[in-house]
Amino acid sequence: MSSWQEIRSRDNPQVRAIRRWLNEASFRRREPWLVLEGDHLLTAALQAGWMPEAVFVEEGREARFAAVLEALPPTCARVRVSAPVFRALAATETPSGIVARFARRMLALTPEVLAGRDLVLLDGVQEPGNVGAILRTAAAAGVGAVLLGPGCADHWAPKVLRAAMGAHFVLPIAAIDDPEPWFAARRGRVFATALAEKAVPLYALGLKAPALWLFGAEGAGVRPEWLAVADACVRIPMPGAMESLNVAAAVAVCLFEAVRQRLCQAKKGVVS
Amino acid sequence: MSSWQEIRSRDNPQVRAIRRWLNEASFRRREPWLVLEGDHLLTAALQAGWMPEAVFVEEGREARFAAVLEALPPTCARVRVSAPVFRALAATETPSGIVARFARRMLALTPEVLAGRDLVLLDGVQEPGNVGAILRTAAAAGVGAVLLGPGCADHWAPKVLRAAMGAHFVLPIAAIDDPEPWFAARRGRVFATALAEKAVPLYALGLKAPALWLFGAEGAGVRPEWLAVADACVRIPMPGAMESLNVAAAVAVCLFEAVRQRLCQAKKGVVS
Repeated sequence: MSSWQEIRSRDNPQVRAIRRWLNEASFRRREPWLVLEGDHLLTAALQAGWMPEAVFVEEGREARFAAVLEALPPTCARVRVSAPVFRALAATETPSGIVARFARRMLALTPEVLAGRDLVLLDGVQEPGNVGAILRTAAAAGVGAVLLGPGCADHWAPKVLRAAMGAHFVLPIAAIDDPEPWFAARRGRVFATALAEKAVPLYALGLKAPALWLFGAEGAGVRPEWLAVADACVRIPMPGAMESLNVAAAVAVCLFEAVRQRLCQAKKGVVS
Repeated sequence: MSSWQEIRSRDNPQVRAIRRWLNEASFRRREPWLVLEGDHLLTAALQAGWMPEAVFVEEGREARFAAVLEALPPTCARVRVSAPVFRALAATETPSGIVARFARRMLALTPEVLAGRDLVLLDGVQEPGNVGAILRTAAAAGVGAVLLGPGCADHWAPKVLRAAMGAHFVLPIAAIDDPEPWFAARRGRVFATALAEKAVPLYALGLKAPALWLFGAEGAGVRPEWLAVADACVRIPMPGAMESLNVAAAVAVCLFEAVRQRLCQAKKGVVS
């Protein structure tokens, strides 16, 4: 195991770069690295084969992270930092004691990766917690990729990374300005969730074939130009006295209805 | 319509009380009123028959809220406040321009209200956005009540109110210390979500009868004493490479699977 470096000043260039990454979306977009906080996210990244460049541990807490530190590649720098420096590196209010800097890896969005799988396209979903939860749900449901249209939260933002709980390491994700090529290349059907009365109830749809799902922002919904491309507008039947679901909840209900129908087709003891 | 009052000082006692309500959980718990921000939540509360005591509008934005102001009961005070005072009253970073104070109304948690309906009991769900999304989902699914066990976010917290989007006005909600009476009084089955391999896949469960659902915190899950009461531990089948869903997503998948099975029973053109 390589020896420890020490940082005791918040003016250290490495510390300043990470602080800037945490606070500036425009800086994050052009830098080819990202920062993960907490041993859960770090472990998920390591398990997915991501290579950390440097790990920063708050002094006195090294023993707690023995398992993670053991799993680091020899090329990864180990840096022990003072408590005030660690607070500068942490994005959370209750810092976890460990932060790592990784070279950013994009999972390729190729037709091969996506053949035979669902795609999700989000329109204007701003709230980072929702975007993160949607990425996590999509990864769990085995979706091929998530495309973030205009107005969506930056998927590398610290809050999105935290809420996604490692989805970034197993799921191709791309921010796109124009979904036309994706509409043009599609092989399956396109479904858009909408509150319209004429929309088809989710449970009346056959979802066994791969589809492209469109989900819109709270209130505004999916923009009309995209709705026009959809083969069907879909609504989730709601017996209770609410108009709509949170977008992340709606995504979970739709994607897992597809999971259910496919399991049912495979005859795995599913209740109809 | 009653005439406008004016407040131009943040030291006004009404303003100070609202600020304290926004910032102090212990104060919120003992005060019999609550604060709602934005015309969407206000309208939902008015539609549900809640009576505002006072409405505070940022000066210059009165015309934007004409419809809401028109719908106010004559007993409700209308207060025009300066922009700095409004910023003191608002919990959000992009203030909506309207805030109202309501007498708090608890929907009764009686056996009659709950007969023949699902119940949801949460264990240690701390994150306000998750608790709010769960309340919204439960209300949409027609659940009878949501019980918040120890360690859950305060359901009157501003972030929970915002995320629940009006669920508080249509759904009985109670914070409880001890679920034993609820377990003892139950008529249907008790299901707990768990990651255990021996858990029953959700889609193999018959969910047409009312049930009590237990959902636990991220990581820790439902506490063992409560799990022991469950008739079945349930897992959501996940074809993708993730260990678990966000708790609010898991609630949505489970409760809407019950919605689907009941619609299917009612033969409303549901795909099996």
